[in-house]
Amino acid sequence: MANECLPVLNTGLRGFTVATTKISDVNGAEGKLIYRGYPAKDLAGTADFEEVVYLLLYEKLPVKEELSAFKALLVKERKIPDEIIQTLKATPVDALPMDVLQSAISMLGNHDADSKEYSREAAQRISIRLVAKTATIVAAWERIRNGKEPVPPSGSLGHAANFLYMISGKTPDDELTSFFDAALTLHAEHSFNASTFSARQVASTRAHMYSAVTAAVGSLSGALHGGANTRVMQMLLEIGSVEAVEDYVKNILETGGKIMGLGHAVYQVDDPRANILAPMSKKMGERTGDTKYYDLSKALEEKGKKSFKEKTGKDIFVNVDFYSASLYYYMGIPVDLFTPVFAVSRVAGWVAHVLEEQFAGAAPKPVLYRPESKYVGDYCGPDECRFVPLEERAGDDV
Amino acid sequence: MANECLPVLNTGLRGFTVATTKISDVNGAEGKLIYRGYPAKDLAGTADFEEVVYLLLYEKLPVKEELSAFKALLVKERKIPDEIIQTLKATPVDALPMDVLQSAISMLGNHDADSKEYSREAAQRISIRLVAKTATIVAAWERIRNGKEPVPPSGSLGHAANFLYMISGKTPDDELTSFFDAALTLHAEHSFNASTFSARQVASTRAHMYSAVTAAVGSLSGALHGGANTRVMQMLLEIGSVEAVEDYVKNILETGGKIMGLGHAVYQVDDPRANILAPMSKKMGERTGDTKYYDLSKALEEKGKKSFKEKTGKDIFVNVDFYSASLYYYMGIPVDLFTPVFAVSRVAGWVAHVLEEQFAGAAPKPVLYRPESKYVGDYCGPDECRFVPLEERAGDDV
Repeated sequence: MANECLPVLNTGLRGFTVATTKISDVNGAEGKLIYRGYPAKDLAGTADFEEVVYLLLYEKLPVKEELSAFKALLVKERKIPDEIIQTLKATPVDALPMDVLQSAISMLGNHDADSKEYSREAAQRISIRLVAKTATIVAAWERIRNGKEPVPPSGSLGHAANFLYMISGKTPDDELTSFFDAALTLHAEHSFNASTFSARQVASTRAHMYSAVTAAVGSLSGALHGGANTRVMQMLLEIGSVEAVEDYVKNILETGGKIMGLGHAVYQVDDPRANILAPMSKKMGERTGDTKYYDLSKALEEKGKKSFKEKTGKDIFVNVDFYSASLYYYMGIPVDLFTPVFAVSRVAGWVAHVLEEQFAGAAPKPVLYRPESKYVGDYCGPDECRFVPLEERAGDDV
Repeated sequence: MANECLPVLNTGLRGFTVATTKISDVNGAEGKLIYRGYPAKDLAGTADFEEVVYLLLYEKLPVKEELSAFKALLVKERKIPDEIIQTLKATPVDALPMDVLQSAISMLGNHDADSKEYSREAAQRISIRLVAKTATIVAAWERIRNGKEPVPPSGSLGHAANFLYMISGKTPDDELTSFFDAALTLHAEHSFNASTFSARQVASTRAHMYSAVTAAVGSLSGALHGGANTRVMQMLLEIGSVEAVEDYVKNILETGGKIMGLGHAVYQVDDPRANILAPMSKKMGERTGDTKYYDLSKALEEKGKKSFKEKTGKDIFVNVDFYSASLYYYMGIPVDLFTPVFAVSRVAGWVAHVLEEQFAGAAPKPVLYRPESKYVGDYCGPDECRFVPLEERAGDDV
């Protein structure tokens, strides 16, 4: 293990290999992302998202009958309890969609008797429910916060088409469905990213699947993690035109700022997902009759990479958020739903990791994640501080 | 750093010092627990829980005026939104109390505009709300699941007394209040335990305080973490009498089982908290006229330690859960509320750690917690698996 003697104090475990997994492999040097042995790029757009979920959960691609049965199960599990719809309706309309998703996923656990059974079978049933219902919650909230009734889930559409249908009430065409499906596949899994690590960490205490995924949603909501795709789009909207890119990049680099969507913790080349998302963004722009945000992204990528190299001598690369932003925007998805849409996809990875953490570890961990910390606070001298009762505490003795 | 070259793969980061902190020091070898320089044992029963919360949040003990103002703030923040009460009333009565607490804490974020502001000031305001409202949620759920109306929080009682009052509708006497207050102090903080690590990990993405604490509640709910105090009591009830202890221990050791409440990840001596909780358990037993569960615990401690030593040659020690179980039981707290009561206390540590992670690290981390994993899954040969479209996939090609 090459990482054994890396410095670990206050480095966020960066570069530390903490566990084995059979779920995915992220090869940062070569820009490869592998799901259960298969390159994600080969799956995206050729396998349905449901096939990919099956692969992540059951460690193999399904044959036709298996896939049909699995899709039927997912369809059956799309509905969410009425009590949760009522809670959503009583939630302030300006609540953050990721926060609302987190509450609702946690509430699912209260309404499911399987949350009281610690077994692989119960966890697998919950996994399927979570993949199905996360989409329904995100879409229901989008409707409710806009004063509309939720669109009941379709009983026939695939996962990608059904989500877009529940948002808009309209059945998407095949091209739009296929692009969205591919985007779901590309965001489904990425080894021990922060939200997945949160899910595994909570699961390691033997908390149930809903608890673990609730934690993961919280992690993904962070600006440094899943919140990044929203911030990419906000940046594109702020730049506003291809002509403004040069000044924007110059200004960012001079002020020591960051170009959102450039740079990644693991990849040392272009994120393999970005290379598939970029042409889809272009095509979707063409469909709307205006490729401005794609063109702007492309110009920003080129100018950003060049200027970064000139300034630092180092290369920088686009990550998954860079082109998913304009792609989702062209699809008509509201900007503050980009991160919840990320969750609609990544929940597949989370549940696979919780299953592995609790029931099928490549090398099962005997213990929960419980690191140590180094105390660097006060001691009031060589030994502990002496406690002085409140009555004797002087105002300036602080 | 002595831990630099420990094995890390699949060991749950055990023994790894991942960060610096100024909040607490757990000295496992000497059995010392220090909060901001002060031994927890000196604080328990002498400082109010509110003083301890102040110490954890503001890094010093308050003087009288500061404490009065802080207590007034906590009292003001006790109420929870009516919408959350309504959601609790629509929750199945057999939902797990920790799950209900997790949902409700997440919902608090939806009802608080401060969750949209990423600042130290907003996070501090949320901290006070979370300490105050966690107690209210746990008590409200205990009432609601028993078909009773929640008892509105008192405007005058201290934190410990108010919680017991909201559970029972009766104001507790001074001794009961003082013991419960001491128990809250002893459970308030314990460095990078699993739930606190979850909170910090989620917070490291810049997710807000509610998200991070929601994750921590999930972690604490796990049977290997906060769920342990409930399991200690279930074990005591199962053993049933002092006379049955000897056979129970014999049987457990023969079958390779564990005696709940013996052993700890960090302490290599008796948990300093257990030494304070034990006499309180005895006294509370005497008050109820029956010290059976205290006597049983004492016999189990002695017999368990002796037999473990004989069998393994190693010493084993009581942890915090061992005597808190019978103590809470004598206080009339339902067994399945023991872990939520742990949360009522530990929330103080969680919020202090989130503040440190995000705004005041002893050495602030520039990055989120994002470890790596080692792929040990399939590759279908020397390279990636070749994707075969569904139509060409044979039923036996799996």
